[in-house]
Amino acid sequence: MIKTWFESAPRLVDVAMGRTPADMVIRNVRWVNVHSGEIIPQTDIAISAGRFAFIGPDASHAAADTTQIIEGAGRYAVPGLCDAHMHVESGMITVSEFARAVIPHGTTSMFIDPHEIANVLGMGGVKLMHDEAVGLPVNVYVQMPSCVPSAPGLENAGASLGPDDVREAMTWPNIIGLGEMMNFPGVVAGDRNMLDEIGFTQAAHKTVGGHYASRDLGLPFHAYAAAGPADDHEGTSLEDCIARVRQGMRAMLRLGSAWYDVAAQIKAVTELGLDPRNFILCTDDSHSGTLVHDGHMNRVVRHAIAQGLKPITAIQMATINAAQHFGLERELGSITPGRRADLVLTSDLVGLPIEMVIGRGQVLAENGRLVADIPRYDYPAKAKDTMRLGKKLGAADFDIAAPQGAAEVTARVIGVIENQAPTRALEHRLPVKAGVVQMDRAADVCQIALVERHRATGNIANGFVSGFGYDKPCAMASTVAHDSHHMIVVGTDKKDMALAANRLGEVGGGVVLFSGGRELALVKLPIAGLMSDQPAEIVADEANALIEAMRQCGCTLNNAYMQHSLLALVVIPELRISDIGLVDVTKFVAVDVLVS
Amino acid sequence: MIKTWFESAPRLVDVAMGRTPADMVIRNVRWVNVHSGEIIPQTDIAISAGRFAFIGPDASHAAADTTQIIEGAGRYAVPGLCDAHMHVESGMITVSEFARAVIPHGTTSMFIDPHEIANVLGMGGVKLMHDEAVGLPVNVYVQMPSCVPSAPGLENAGASLGPDDVREAMTWPNIIGLGEMMNFPGVVAGDRNMLDEIGFTQAAHKTVGGHYASRDLGLPFHAYAAAGPADDHEGTSLEDCIARVRQGMRAMLRLGSAWYDVAAQIKAVTELGLDPRNFILCTDDSHSGTLVHDGHMNRVVRHAIAQGLKPITAIQMATINAAQHFGLERELGSITPGRRADLVLTSDLVGLPIEMVIGRGQVLAENGRLVADIPRYDYPAKAKDTMRLGKKLGAADFDIAAPQGAAEVTARVIGVIENQAPTRALEHRLPVKAGVVQMDRAADVCQIALVERHRATGNIANGFVSGFGYDKPCAMASTVAHDSHHMIVVGTDKKDMALAANRLGEVGGGVVLFSGGRELALVKLPIAGLMSDQPAEIVADEANALIEAMRQCGCTLNNAYMQHSLLALVVIPELRISDIGLVDVTKFVAVDVLVS
Repeated sequence: MIKTWFESAPRLVDVAMGRTPADMVIRNVRWVNVHSGEIIPQTDIAISAGRFAFIGPDASHAAADTTQIIEGAGRYAVPGLCDAHMHVESGMITVSEFARAVIPHGTTSMFIDPHEIANVLGMGGVKLMHDEAVGLPVNVYVQMPSCVPSAPGLENAGASLGPDDVREAMTWPNIIGLGEMMNFPGVVAGDRNMLDEIGFTQAAHKTVGGHYASRDLGLPFHAYAAAGPADDHEGTSLEDCIARVRQGMRAMLRLGSAWYDVAAQIKAVTELGLDPRNFILCTDDSHSGTLVHDGHMNRVVRHAIAQGLKPITAIQMATINAAQHFGLERELGSITPGRRADLVLTSDLVGLPIEMVIGRGQVLAENGRLVADIPRYDYPAKAKDTMRLGKKLGAADFDIAAPQGAAEVTARVIGVIENQAPTRALEHRLPVKAGVVQMDRAADVCQIALVERHRATGNIANGFVSGFGYDKPCAMASTVAHDSHHMIVVGTDKKDMALAANRLGEVGGGVVLFSGGRELALVKLPIAGLMSDQPAEIVADEANALIEAMRQCGCTLNNAYMQHSLLALVVIPELRISDIGLVDVTKFVAVDVLVS
Repeated sequence: MIKTWFESAPRLVDVAMGRTPADMVIRNVRWVNVHSGEIIPQTDIAISAGRFAFIGPDASHAAADTTQIIEGAGRYAVPGLCDAHMHVESGMITVSEFARAVIPHGTTSMFIDPHEIANVLGMGGVKLMHDEAVGLPVNVYVQMPSCVPSAPGLENAGASLGPDDVREAMTWPNIIGLGEMMNFPGVVAGDRNMLDEIGFTQAAHKTVGGHYASRDLGLPFHAYAAAGPADDHEGTSLEDCIARVRQGMRAMLRLGSAWYDVAAQIKAVTELGLDPRNFILCTDDSHSGTLVHDGHMNRVVRHAIAQGLKPITAIQMATINAAQHFGLERELGSITPGRRADLVLTSDLVGLPIEMVIGRGQVLAENGRLVADIPRYDYPAKAKDTMRLGKKLGAADFDIAAPQGAAEVTARVIGVIENQAPTRALEHRLPVKAGVVQMDRAADVCQIALVERHRATGNIANGFVSGFGYDKPCAMASTVAHDSHHMIVVGTDKKDMALAANRLGEVGGGVVLFSGGRELALVKLPIAGLMSDQPAEIVADEANALIEAMRQCGCTLNNAYMQHSLLALVVIPELRISDIGLVDVTKFVAVDVLVS
C-alpha cells in the first residue's frame, strides 16, 4: 500500500525545495495538464515516495546520484488511465492477471464491480477480490455489488446481499462506492432495501453507481435520479447521455468488447458543446482477447478521439473526470504534486502508443511489455470449490415430458437475436416421441438447460432455444451464466449435454463444448466457476479455440459465447431461463415450457 | 437542519413519480444547468423536503392543492450563489446578520473562515460561529482557522490553536475543511505543526484552504502545492492563477470590498482558454456597506461577466465549481434532483437582478427584500466580555521616552501606502520635549499604540505612523486589529488617544474617533470586539459616519479604516506593530522605535 499524501508530505516538500533528492526524475516531457486543459512543453517531473513531488520547467535541483532519471525526450506525459466502471470477471481472469494485462496499455486505475463473484460467493467473494486488489502496484478500487441476486424472486443465486452488507463493505479500505444499481424498477417503486443500499453508501460519503437500462426518459428516469445514483453507463443514445448529465449524473460512455456506446453519445460534446467534465469513459466488460489484442482504456481514448473529440478532452474523460467522480481528484488522475505518480509516456496523443507506464513512481511497463513484478495471488481452496451439481447428470435429465398422449406440442422457445442482448419469446410446434418433446434441429430449435450448481439441489430447468445455428450433435455448457451463474447448457444432443455438464463439474467450472461425445474445447474457470488462474494470453487463446469449435458446430453468431452466457439474465426481455424455469421478462413471471 | 438526501429519498422518488405532491412547484423557468452548461427553456421544478425532486418540462403531476406554485414566467432559474471563501467578521456583523444581508443578493451558501474571532476567543469562538451557522436557512460551512496566531513569536493573540484543535474541529458537523494556510514559509520549511494541520484535514477527507501570498512562483510555490493546500485566493496576476491551476489547486478569484483580483486573472479563461472548472469566485472580505449598497456574490458574478466571461461559466464558478471543491457537488450548487433546493430567479443573466431567492425550498427573498424569518442569534455574555485593558489609560501611557539628554531623535515610522496593504519602514527625525519624543504633525507623523486587551497585562506598545493625514487633534481606536485583534490607537493627541481607548474598554470593543475630547463617531462591536449585534444597515451607517469623521479630521485615504486595522498585521511587510512592539516584517524581528 502506498503511504498517504499526508504521511509523505514532509518528504515531498523537501524534494520540491531541493533539500532531499527525488526517487525519480523524468526529464523534458510535454505535460498533459488535465486541470488547466493545456499541454505544457519542456517540463520535468520529480517523484518521491510514489507521489509527484515537483512538476516544473527544471527539476535538476531534485536529482542526485541516487535518483532514477528517465529521459522524456519531448514525449507527452499523460496521467495514468482510469477505467471508471468495469467487471474483472468479464476477462475470465483474476484481478492480478487483469492488471498484468492492462498495465502495458496504460491503465493504472480501475473501479471494479465484482458483481459476478458476489453472485457465487457472496461477501466472501467480494472480500477476496477486494483484498487481492489492495496488494497491486496499480489502483484498484472496488464498488460493492448492489443487486445480488439481480432478480430476487425470479432466480436463486449463490448468495444474497442486502443493505447490511453494503453498510459493512463501506468500512473496507478499498471500497469506493456502490456498484451499479440495476434494480431501477425497485428504486423507482421506492423499494426500501434498494434505497437503504444507496443511503448507506451516501452516508459513507461514497459514490453510488447507476444502471438505468431503459429507454424511458420520463418519470421513472427522473425518479431514479432523485433516488441518488451518481452515474450511469447504460446510456446508448445521444438523448440518454444528455438527460443524465442534465439531471446531475455523470454519463459514463462505454467501449467494451461488445459495447459500442461512445460514438453516438460523444456528440453531446463534439457537436452540441455540452460541458465535458461530466463525461467519463469506461469499458464495463472486456474479454481477455480484447485485452491481449486490442487494448483497454487506451483503446477507448483513441476511439473517442477518432470520433472528433480533442485529445486533451478525451484524456480528461479517462483520468481526472473519473477521479473527481469518486472523490479522488487529489489522489490520482492528474500529474500534479501529491498525487500518486501514475503516468504514461507517449509520442503521439492521437495514436496513443503506450511507450512507458509508471505507477506510483515505478516503471511498470515499456513498449507494451510488463517489466514490474506483479505477485501471483492464490485464491483459497474454498473459492475454487463452487461446483455443487448434487449428482452425475445423464441424457434423461434433459427430457421434457409431453402431456399424456400428445403427438405434437407447442413450446415456448427463447429466440436469440444477432448482435442484441434482448431475446424474443417465440413459440414452435415440436414433435413428441415416447412421451418426450423433441428438438427440431432443422428449424434450429435445440435444448437449453439451467443446471443449479450452488446448493447441490440437483435441480435442472429445461427449455428450448433457437438462433445458435448448431448443425451437428453437440452441447456447450458454461458456468459463466449471468447473473446468478448457475450452469447453462445448450445442445442439440442430450448425451453431449450431460457430458458437458459433468465435465464442468469435474474441473470446477468453466466453458466446454462437446460434439459426438468428444471434448472440442475447454476453458477451465476454477475460481468461482468464473475466472481462470491463468494469464490473459492463455485464457484468450482458450476462449478463441472455444469460439472456433462453436463455429465448427455451425454457430456463426457474433459474440456467440456471450449470447450463450446471457440466456439466464432474467432482467432483460423477453424470454430467459433461470433455476425456477422459463421466465417471461416482459411480465416478470415464470412460465411453462409448453403452451397449454 | 435539513434532512439528508438519503432520509428524504423515498419522498423525492414519490414526488418525481407523481405519487406524493410536491411542497412547491416552480413553473416555466429557463433552467441554468451548470452540469451540462446549457440553458434549457420551459422547465418546471418540483421541490419536496427542502430538496429538488423533479426538474423537467412538466411537473404538473407533482402539483396538488397543497403545493405552493411559483410562476417562473420564463425567467432564468440559477442555482443559489456560493461564496467559496469569506470572513463574516469583515462585515462587523454576526453570521445571522450576514445571512440576512446577503440572501436578498442571491447567496445561499457560504464557506466562512472565522479566523478573527478565533484570535480573540480561540476554539470557543469558532464553535460559536459554527453553531450559529448550523441554525440558518442557508448553508454556512465553516473552515477551521489554521493560523492562530498568524505570526507565532511576533505577537500574542487572545488564543493559540494547533493540530489537536484542527483534529477536534474536523468532527464538528459543519466544518468543511481547514481555513487558509497562511503560514506558507512554515509549510515550505516543513513545519510539523502546519503539516499536521493539513494532514488531519486530509485524513478527515476535507478541503485544505490555501493562502500563498507571495509573488515567488519558484520552488517555494511548488513546495507549498506539494504540502497539500487545495486552493488559493491570494493570486492577483494572470501568472498566479495559471500556476495554481496547473499544480492542481483551484484558483479562487476574489472581488471583495477592497480586493479586485478577478479582472486580471479571469483572462486565463477568456483569453487563454484554460478549463474553467478549476476557477472559483469568492469575496474574502466584504464590508457592511458593500453588502448593503453593492451586493455580494451577485456583484462578483456580474463583474466576471463584465470582463467577458460567458454568463453560464461565471455562474458555474459561483455554484457547482465551489460545491465540487468542497466535496458537496451532490448536496448543493446545481438545480438537479436530490440537491438542496437553493435557487435564484432572474430575468437577465447579465445584469443579474435577484428577483426571488429560494433556500431549501422556502422563499427567502423577493425583489431585494428578505421575506423569511431569520432568528436572531444571541451570543453568550462571555463572547461580549473580551475587553481586558487592565487599567484606565492616561495620556502619559503613550509617552515615548527619549534617551537621556537628547534634543532630537531618529524614529522608525510605519509608512502607510495609499491603496496598498504593505507599509514602508520609514525613518524620521523627531524633536524631544521634557524627555519625551514628540510627534511631527506638520510632516504627518503621529503616534500609534498597540494596546494589549486579551489578558489585562496593561501592556502598551508605542510607535509612530505616517500617511493618515490627520490635521486636527484627534485619535482613533479600533479593536479590529488584524490578526491578533488587540487595540490599535492612532492619534495626533494623546489625551484623545486615552479617551478613545478607554471608551472602547467601556463598550466592549469597536471603533471610535475622538477629537478635542469629543466623540465624533463610534461603531460598537461588543461581540469579541469584532462584531456588532446590529443589522448590516445600521453597522454600514455607523461605519460610514466613522469614515466621514476621519475625513473631517483630515484623513482622505481610500479604505482609511482598513489601513488602520491592518497596521498590526505582522505578516505583511515592511513595518508593523504588535504587542511585542514594532516588527520589521522583512526580517521577522522586533525592532526599537528609536534608531540608536
